[in-house]
Amino acid sequence: MRIDLNADVGESFGPYTIGQDAELMSSITSANVAAGFHGGDASTVRAAIRLARTSGVSVGVHPGLPDLAGFGRREMRVSAAEAEDLVLYQLAAVAGVARAEGVTVQHVKPHGALYHMAARSAELAGAIVRAVKAFDASLILFGLPGSEVLKVGRGQGLRVAAEVFADRAYQSDGSLVSRLVPGAVIDDPGTLVRRAVRMVKDRTVVAVDGGVVGLEADSICIHGDTPGAGLLAAHLRRGLEDAGVTVKAIGER
Amino acid sequence: MRIDLNADVGESFGPYTIGQDAELMSSITSANVAAGFHGGDASTVRAAIRLARTSGVSVGVHPGLPDLAGFGRREMRVSAAEAEDLVLYQLAAVAGVARAEGVTVQHVKPHGALYHMAARSAELAGAIVRAVKAFDASLILFGLPGSEVLKVGRGQGLRVAAEVFADRAYQSDGSLVSRLVPGAVIDDPGTLVRRAVRMVKDRTVVAVDGGVVGLEADSICIHGDTPGAGLLAAHLRRGLEDAGVTVKAIGER
Amino acid sequence: MRIDLNADVGESFGPYTIGQDAELMSSITSANVAAGFHGGDASTVRAAIRLARTSGVSVGVHPGLPDLAGFGRREMRVSAAEAEDLVLYQLAAVAGVARAEGVTVQHVKPHGALYHMAARSAELAGAIVRAVKAFDASLILFGLPGSEVLKVGRGQGLRVAAEVFADRAYQSDGSLVSRLVPGAVIDDPGTLVRRAVRMVKDRTVVAVDGGVVGLEADSICIHGDTPGAGLLAAHLRRGLEDAGVTVKAIGER
Amino acid sequence: MRIDLNADVGESFGPYTIGQDAELMSSITSANVAAGFHGGDASTVRAAIRLARTSGVSVGVHPGLPDLAGFGRREMRVSAAEAEDLVLYQLAAVAGVARAEGVTVQHVKPHGALYHMAARSAELAGAIVRAVKAFDASLILFGLPGSEVLKVGRGQGLRVAAEVFADRAYQSDGSLVSRLVPGAVIDDPGTLVRRAVRMVKDRTVVAVDGGVVGLEADSICIHGDTPGAGLLAAHLRRGLEDAGVTVKAIGER
Repeated sequence: MRIDLNADVGESFGPYTIGQDAELMSSITSANVAAGFHGGDASTVRAAIRLARTSGVSVGVHPGLPDLAGFGRREMRVSAAEAEDLVLYQLAAVAGVARAEGVTVQHVKPHGALYHMAARSAELAGAIVRAVKAFDASLILFGLPGSEVLKVGRGQGLRVAAEVFADRAYQSDGSLVSRLVPGAVIDDPGTLVRRAVRMVKDRTVVAVDGGVVGLEADSICIHGDTPGAGLLAAHLRRGLEDAGVTVKAIGER
Repeated sequence: MRIDLNADVGESFGPYTIGQDAELMSSITSANVAAGFHGGDASTVRAAIRLARTSGVSVGVHPGLPDLAGFGRREMRVSAAEAEDLVLYQLAAVAGVARAEGVTVQHVKPHGALYHMAARSAELAGAIVRAVKAFDASLILFGLPGSEVLKVGRGQGLRVAAEVFADRAYQSDGSLVSRLVPGAVIDDPGTLVRRAVRMVKDRTVVAVDGGVVGLEADSICIHGDTPGAGLLAAHLRRGLEDAGVTVKAIGER
Repeated sequence: MRIDLNADVGESFGPYTIGQDAELMSSITSANVAAGFHGGDASTVRAAIRLARTSGVSVGVHPGLPDLAGFGRREMRVSAAEAEDLVLYQLAAVAGVARAEGVTVQHVKPHGALYHMAARSAELAGAIVRAVKAFDASLILFGLPGSEVLKVGRGQGLRVAAEVFADRAYQSDGSLVSRLVPGAVIDDPGTLVRRAVRMVKDRTVVAVDGGVVGLEADSICIHGDTPGAGLLAAHLRRGLEDAGVTVKAIGER
Repeated sequence: MRIDLNADVGESFGPYTIGQDAELMSSITSANVAAGFHGGDASTVRAAIRLARTSGVSVGVHPGLPDLAGFGRREMRVSAAEAEDLVLYQLAAVAGVARAEGVTVQHVKPHGALYHMAARSAELAGAIVRAVKAFDASLILFGLPGSEVLKVGRGQGLRVAAEVFADRAYQSDGSLVSRLVPGAVIDDPGTLVRRAVRMVKDRTVVAVDGGVVGLEADSICIHGDTPGAGLLAAHLRRGLEDAGVTVKAIGER
């Protein structure tokens, strides 16, 4: 019984800071480093990688749409070829900076709108998978359970990781309840830990209609943009470990 | 008696095309691929690398200042730390895309204002050299003869290449005559070839005051942004070969 | 019997040139000046306005999505509030530069994906109309015949202009045939003129299935990004005038 | 005896927040609204103007260099023509959005590196002055006492305002001590108020060498990027008013 804890980091830009990289690093096991398209810049990428290295956290690439003003959260109709090239470039940039810092990249997790678009579209998922395979076929590709990203990735021989959200309400079909719906985000630490432990031990979650839903769960995503995210992450990690779960980076033996 | 011919490529951006990449590729031996900061984008980088590969041209990284509107030609007061991170990121991006295309990067040539600022500043030259060494100490660093880039690069154990301009008038101290001075740019094909051959065979150039100036010359830079650049490059290559000069990529045995 | 001829101008960016602004100015009556989001920059905006003024061409604002790499042609899921603010800012920028050049802006024509998204979405059309009314309710709003933009604009008391494409094939429902379909773009000058004259005189076009479709036609759009666009525009204008049509800016008495 | 209190606002970008706009608005009399080049975006500009309007604060334009990653603080070698166009565009954008919000712009204060470069360069100062005059010759131009901006502005018939920094140490020649020198930034509220009152009442400041320096002082700049800036601004305003100084926007009668 083991689980990976991942969070997005390195999303600050120039004078603009966002997220709680330093606070999260003591609790997470995998850091998704932004590559400068939806967030991050050349210096931020490097700083995030150094921070992860010193904290013993595994590094992944977090490629996004080229939309800094929208933080990569606005869907853009990019072609499959554009998506492939965008992802390949971002993989190359972050992995190369990591290599210069003595770090080998472990995984890839698409960001925001790209993540959600590729979850639904086999074409976009294929573009991402092609980019990953062209760059380094040993990288682990993160995606939503049941998403096209996981299906296509697996089909193409990539190692994939299913990601769950302990702080979000689920529909009975296994999809997330929209953030706009009251109660969609769970911020009570106790509830959070109980849900996380259940996700890991039983591979289930209780949906909003009370039904029990099965879920693949290789990694739990922690959102770094909520106030107190660092504390919540620490609480979650301790809760999981107290319940006998091994918290370990996905790529570690 | 051998020489490398280099040109900047991959500087188009989205719908905007610039340069004559395809025309140049049949004549040059080293292509400096822009990395998306002063020019270029994720798809352009990849296309330029593919074109170089098919043309048998060696690939280098052409990092610039983050100033697309100014094409990296406006000096910006970046700190040494910023310059190091900017160059490292761009090295990583282009070299990683190249690797995905089965291409090993040969060299690094800073672009525009970064090139000229680092020629004069030991601090900036040091930043660039640190980035190159951190990323891949086997890369060949291009710079002006007598520049801080070559001095610091050599001092730090990098292989360097001195670059000359067959189409530009020189001062008696070995520096270039400003483009704003009439006669500073040489566009007569015959004169161009004669100057190039002399640069390679005698390692000298006749300055504007008639004096003879000694010059290191490992590579001749060809400007791709002048009309007819492709034809001029072909003419130059043939002229050099007719004079018994071997035209070969700098990194080739 | 009169018609306006409009074209997009001022879409170059820094060192990157696109379009044939100078060639078009002698034939068109209304120039849609890009505002720096999908194309254009501070200097290009001003140069395009000066060129229009000297050529006696009326000036409009051509606001687009903030996507230079995609030239504003990739749909982005912007909210209505974002769209309103984006359009207002671009109206302000171009109209203010125009005022400094002694030019009063005549019209607004959204660009690319924003144009097409707002044609279908009453919500986005409403956002654009709010921006125009907040800035200057006397501006004429351009849109596709039958589009939400024209409907909402009219409903909100704006003066609107229906725009037709003499160089594009039409479906029997009055919509354009996709550019990807062979034959969708008409480049024979004679056919172009005949279609344009018919659009103006009869307010009809022959659709691809042979049927005759009625069309509002206040302005004919000329694409500036095709080779020979300047010549084609001159040919079109002469053809219209020879057929007795008055070619005049939409806002002129 | 009156003084204006100004602060930079509207410098947030997309998801990235910076500054303490809301906290400052209850104390300042003039708000310098960023225009989207060094900071700010279309929605931020509008929100800052609305906030100023509701707070009864006068609005100015805060044009900067096109360098979001460097927050407009890195010097860039822009030509005078480029600077003129950049400033004109930003004036147009902010003033036009303000007009749509029923607000008439009062002043212009260049930002960061542009401010300091133009303080020293008559050529750049001239470019800024030309842009202001072309757009609206009634705008008040802010600058350092003794700067080229004030000299050229006055010489060209603009109304100008000399700006002082109550929280910064001064040299005996009236220039600021670099922020890098310990003690250059004054954060003790009592000292701050005493210096400000003296600047306004005596038009003098005690320099670091103990000498008394004369200073024009039409407006005091409040930095919004220090923690507690809102409280400090409130303290400063109250201190000035308690000392019998009228705190009023520069453009008010």
